[in-house]
Amino acid sequence: MGESQVRIVEVGPRDGLQNESIPIPLEAKLRFVHSLVSAGLKEIEVTSFVSPKWVPQLADAAELFAHLDHGPMYSALVPNARGLERAMDLDVQRIAVFTAASESFTKANINMTIAESLDQFRSLIERFRHPCKPNWVRGYVSTAFECPYEGRIAIQKVLSVCSQLLELGVDELSLGDTIGVACPNEVRSLGKALLSEFGSRISAKTFWHFHDTWGTGLANVDAALALGFTNFDASAGGLGGCPYAPGAGGNLATEDLIYLLERSGVSTGVDLDRLAKSSEEILGLLGKVPTARAQVAALARTSAL
Amino acid sequence: MGESQVRIVEVGPRDGLQNESIPIPLEAKLRFVHSLVSAGLKEIEVTSFVSPKWVPQLADAAELFAHLDHGPMYSALVPNARGLERAMDLDVQRIAVFTAASESFTKANINMTIAESLDQFRSLIERFRHPCKPNWVRGYVSTAFECPYEGRIAIQKVLSVCSQLLELGVDELSLGDTIGVACPNEVRSLGKALLSEFGSRISAKTFWHFHDTWGTGLANVDAALALGFTNFDASAGGLGGCPYAPGAGGNLATEDLIYLLERSGVSTGVDLDRLAKSSEEILGLLGKVPTARAQVAALARTSAL
Repeated sequence: MGESQVRIVEVGPRDGLQNESIPIPLEAKLRFVHSLVSAGLKEIEVTSFVSPKWVPQLADAAELFAHLDHGPMYSALVPNARGLERAMDLDVQRIAVFTAASESFTKANINMTIAESLDQFRSLIERFRHPCKPNWVRGYVSTAFECPYEGRIAIQKVLSVCSQLLELGVDELSLGDTIGVACPNEVRSLGKALLSEFGSRISAKTFWHFHDTWGTGLANVDAALALGFTNFDASAGGLGGCPYAPGAGGNLATEDLIYLLERSGVSTGVDLDRLAKSSEEILGLLGKVPTARAQVAALARTSAL
Repeated sequence: MGESQVRIVEVGPRDGLQNESIPIPLEAKLRFVHSLVSAGLKEIEVTSFVSPKWVPQLADAAELFAHLDHGPMYSALVPNARGLERAMDLDVQRIAVFTAASESFTKANINMTIAESLDQFRSLIERFRHPCKPNWVRGYVSTAFECPYEGRIAIQKVLSVCSQLLELGVDELSLGDTIGVACPNEVRSLGKALLSEFGSRISAKTFWHFHDTWGTGLANVDAALALGFTNFDASAGGLGGCPYAPGAGGNLATEDLIYLLERSGVSTGVDLDRLAKSSEEILGLLGKVPTARAQVAALARTSAL
């Protein structure tokens, strides 16, 4: 499997930081994003054009984007029409919209029903599309395995939301194990159902967004790889806890993902040691120590040299 | 898959503690072992009858065993004839002998060639067997994937050592990813080779002893499970670092293993929350904080109640 066949969306700057209460200055964010690029990451979701009232940490979204090159490397979450206008003012080329497979979660998280969220996406996507620009839309489907309020989510519900997002014209899906509880057999079941429902071309459009709360992140990646899925979200240093399990681990660490892929013969173009250093720095600003296995091991290897 | 079909050998008290420099008093070890039993673990390698000069932490092996019930629940590593006599004096019913698939590692670790180690096992096993006792022998094959001195280990070397151990009459094998670098495709390759060489009955005799240095422990477990292997070693709280990567993670955490198995529908009989508390206590005595994902998540869940 060659480098061109695997895509990694680094979500640390957005998903990793959004719930952190210690404010990270713009300069440090820029240094973080640039260090991720230097380490070899090619797609980074850097912020969210959300109201600063909801997510103070990302209040500098416009300033951040103003300091970054335009282009397909950087994307941003866009929660509503206001956020889209802010993003378009900055010529952001890639946006992500956010819904879930669980009604209760969607209600609690964005105060809409799933149907209302999809309706809103229709107008957002229409507004965002441009005849001369390669604008790109990602659709997040959160709680694709289990919801903190409803428990296990039926595969049919996930397929239904995916189907509606695809009909709205999203370019890619990101299926989230939001509370990090899924195990490989669940990934295999959902993965096979996706392939069966949408055909093998769905694999190129699907990202798996695993969390590592219970340590199953890489096992789930391996299960998805075995079915031919090659696109994954990950967060540098595993940035981002789980609001539903305070103190527990959050996103799958990009370091762990890179290690598994490279050792398995999939070239990623990412320098694991440099990435581990980048993550260590931002974790330090948050008063945290590295806990992602591959990050810790890479730092130990580097310091032993 | 039912409870009877999965076997977990808890190696925390031996493999987890042996390299720790802070001495753990006998009382604390006994409390730890008993708490592991209370949590539901059924097979525990509790110590090693090694010379106290080599491993001061386990100098109390005889005292520890004298305080434990006899029976198949507790086993001990036995490095040589002297250790075997000590174990037999205490009526230890299950012993483990230790070699590796790498000549350099065997030389560095036990100062013998692989052939010399196997020769020694012959006399140890003959001495240990008893017509009226159900004495049981485990054979460790360390560096089954990669050696810190030689690099990647050819599958044929692993098969050769396994074959010789089986000819010597060991009851079970434990194949170690000693430095925790293996990925699922390597597990699949070795697992398939074992099945091809020894037939499907080898799965019941084989334990996988994964380390989690680079975060691939559970992914490797899942790969082995998919091939029909159901026996795993693990260490409470991931006790035991990696001497070849100071500061990095060590053994696969029993908590992570239990979480994956239970969530996948395999009943283990182990209470994850109790186990996580036991591990927290022994880690505390070593001046360490929990880092295994499922342990951290279980502790967070428990404290949130």
